[in-house]
Amino acid sequence: MTLNQEFLTDFHHVAEFGATVRNGVDRQAATPEDKLSRDWFAEFAKNQGWEIRVDHIGNMFALIETRPGAPYVLLGSHLDSQPLGGRYDGAYGVIAGLHAAKNIKHRLDAEGVVPEFNLGVVNWFNEEGGRFAPSIMGSSVFVGSMDESEMLKVEDLEGISVAQALESIGYLGTDARPEVAGYAEIHIEQGRILEREQINIGAVDYSWHTQKLDIEVLGEQSHTGATAMADRHDALVAASKVVLKVHDVVESFPEGSIVSSVGRMTLEPNSPIVVARRVHLVADLRAENKHDVLEARRILIDQIARIAEQHEIKINVADFDVREIQYYPEEGLELVEKVAANLGKSVRRIRTMAGHDSVAMNRIVPTVMLFIPSIDGVSHCEREFSTDEDMLHGLDVLADIGWEMSLGALREKDVHERSTDEYAQGVKA
Amino acid sequence: MTLNQEFLTDFHHVAEFGATVRNGVDRQAATPEDKLSRDWFAEFAKNQGWEIRVDHIGNMFALIETRPGAPYVLLGSHLDSQPLGGRYDGAYGVIAGLHAAKNIKHRLDAEGVVPEFNLGVVNWFNEEGGRFAPSIMGSSVFVGSMDESEMLKVEDLEGISVAQALESIGYLGTDARPEVAGYAEIHIEQGRILEREQINIGAVDYSWHTQKLDIEVLGEQSHTGATAMADRHDALVAASKVVLKVHDVVESFPEGSIVSSVGRMTLEPNSPIVVARRVHLVADLRAENKHDVLEARRILIDQIARIAEQHEIKINVADFDVREIQYYPEEGLELVEKVAANLGKSVRRIRTMAGHDSVAMNRIVPTVMLFIPSIDGVSHCEREFSTDEDMLHGLDVLADIGWEMSLGALREKDVHERSTDEYAQGVKA
Repeated sequence: MTLNQEFLTDFHHVAEFGATVRNGVDRQAATPEDKLSRDWFAEFAKNQGWEIRVDHIGNMFALIETRPGAPYVLLGSHLDSQPLGGRYDGAYGVIAGLHAAKNIKHRLDAEGVVPEFNLGVVNWFNEEGGRFAPSIMGSSVFVGSMDESEMLKVEDLEGISVAQALESIGYLGTDARPEVAGYAEIHIEQGRILEREQINIGAVDYSWHTQKLDIEVLGEQSHTGATAMADRHDALVAASKVVLKVHDVVESFPEGSIVSSVGRMTLEPNSPIVVARRVHLVADLRAENKHDVLEARRILIDQIARIAEQHEIKINVADFDVREIQYYPEEGLELVEKVAANLGKSVRRIRTMAGHDSVAMNRIVPTVMLFIPSIDGVSHCEREFSTDEDMLHGLDVLADIGWEMSLGALREKDVHERSTDEYAQGVKA
Repeated sequence: MTLNQEFLTDFHHVAEFGATVRNGVDRQAATPEDKLSRDWFAEFAKNQGWEIRVDHIGNMFALIETRPGAPYVLLGSHLDSQPLGGRYDGAYGVIAGLHAAKNIKHRLDAEGVVPEFNLGVVNWFNEEGGRFAPSIMGSSVFVGSMDESEMLKVEDLEGISVAQALESIGYLGTDARPEVAGYAEIHIEQGRILEREQINIGAVDYSWHTQKLDIEVLGEQSHTGATAMADRHDALVAASKVVLKVHDVVESFPEGSIVSSVGRMTLEPNSPIVVARRVHLVADLRAENKHDVLEARRILIDQIARIAEQHEIKINVADFDVREIQYYPEEGLELVEKVAANLGKSVRRIRTMAGHDSVAMNRIVPTVMLFIPSIDGVSHCEREFSTDEDMLHGLDVLADIGWEMSLGALREKDVHERSTDEYAQGVKA
């Protein structure tokens, strides 16, 4: 088998862990299905003779030490999925990372080069956040933007904590975290730009500003049969109005500049013959610029107050998971453009609406984020799809990026941090 | 202690099983809290020397045989509650039944009377249906309108079946069901009519027509961040519109003649960053006449079809739990009026919007249903309240109804069945 065939075989093999009947995967964080993919990752590294470490939040590192004591350039993403998710989101980046690292190691050996940095591959814990919120948990703990002991206590809807879940699959590790010098991640676009423009590679420029609103609607429990309509304080009726306001708020902004959704909602007591006393929901706001998120939030808080007044109930709203726009370093974008050009792949700069582990890593080390096309732009669902050909284009670029970075192409001291102001000027110009 | 004090002491003692901090109870069917109230019921009967039977759907019967081989007049209701429900709904009728039966037995012994029918008290399984749907399960199985083996397989949201839950608390019985000759139940009104008119006792005339709609909204799962608003098929947005239509449909009818609600709704995958693929909800329609329920259903099905079309998603709607209007026998209403007058209690005829075990029992034996006032008309919530004084008025009436029925006041052959047409004429007259 060629290197490419080996990659494709491995990629589609991993998609069997938690496979669904409709070609997707259901491999939520720290489930038995997640364990299968983790065991496979460890086995791959072991077969190459690489070191495996598992840290205390379940992140897995496969490490290749060629320069003793030097920090690591990591390649990777996450093997967990959404419930009934796709096989590409996350898994592609990890498996491409493993094969790129194997390729780079062969090349180092063949050319007899000792690189500036060591190379590693990472499988971050719980990027998806479907079972344990917030998402991007493992990498955020790694970079210090989330607190490890707090995250270990986070519970799923069944009351099982992150620590218990990781322990139960044998991945609550105790190993030291590697020192890092850089990070590169490849991922499906989850949008339609690359597909539409028939471009092989997206060089991710910046992430959208995002935040969530935790909304608690507090009505009064009563009998669906015996309580007159006028005497009710129905939390679900008010919550349904909130869902529609969250959906409609995007109409106040230019098309495509903002998205707004409610994906989680739970009722209490959730009995067919009881008017709900409490509805808890989470709204997710994301926009190209921070001002639009803040303006949508302002509009919603105002509308929610009016809904509460109309229904004579209490609605509590709290901000959480606020993520400022993150700019990836210009030097990294230029490196991607150079590597792609050398390989004869088409490339364009692109923004990411979704969060990624690379957004977290970009806070602490020079980071490169790559996209490949997603058919129809769909993701977080079973019909998520990218072609084998597109995956191989991406693998080639990732391998060369990893090669360049391990040789020192994107050193911390050479990278210029981009500020919001600088970006804003760029947009105006 | 007087008989009245003993009743009140027992009533408020039972309210300690599953007590909540706000004076309510959380004692859902076949939970450890339900077991406590069942054990107390059995202990009460044992202390009186009565026979205890538990049937295969968890109904409990405390039986007093004074005429060997004769069928039983049963008094009773249910000890299970809604999640965070009140202490009165159900428990009042069971505990009043026990004390009324004790009183009647003393009187039979003192007067040396051998009644026509034996007397018993029943605690029906799962009247509430909050944990296991449908509601009114135990009495419906008893009368044969629900299938026992089917009901034993019903699962709660955790996947625990009725059979497993009853087994786990030791109440999956094997005893034969008693033969019955009549049934009387007392309950809080769960409305404001008696309170407003300052009347002691409601003689329940008929039950409302009710039905439920099982509604399944099938959208497409996608990423809340990366999916353009126009590309979404958001099951929650469509479901929220359905909830509001269900709420608003009552506006097409005269005030107070119909109620309509959604109390249960579940999302899949219910992840904060995933647009919902499936929302399942249950609508509950109840009206004074069948025609209004059918008309509301017709309007809703039409509106739901339009919502599905607008969102390009599929919405499945199925009827279930249809309950025709049930008329309680005229002879029973007259008996209540006579007994109340003799005791100096005020009484009026009243309809029930809520379902009760007596609605099921009324299908097979002459049945009497009594109400006492509910403060503010609230129920299925912790602040449900009736005064001790009102409970004692009701207890007196129930004891005399039980006395009269055991002596043969409401024999099957003397009771005239009332049809819908007859009632409609009565209303027009």
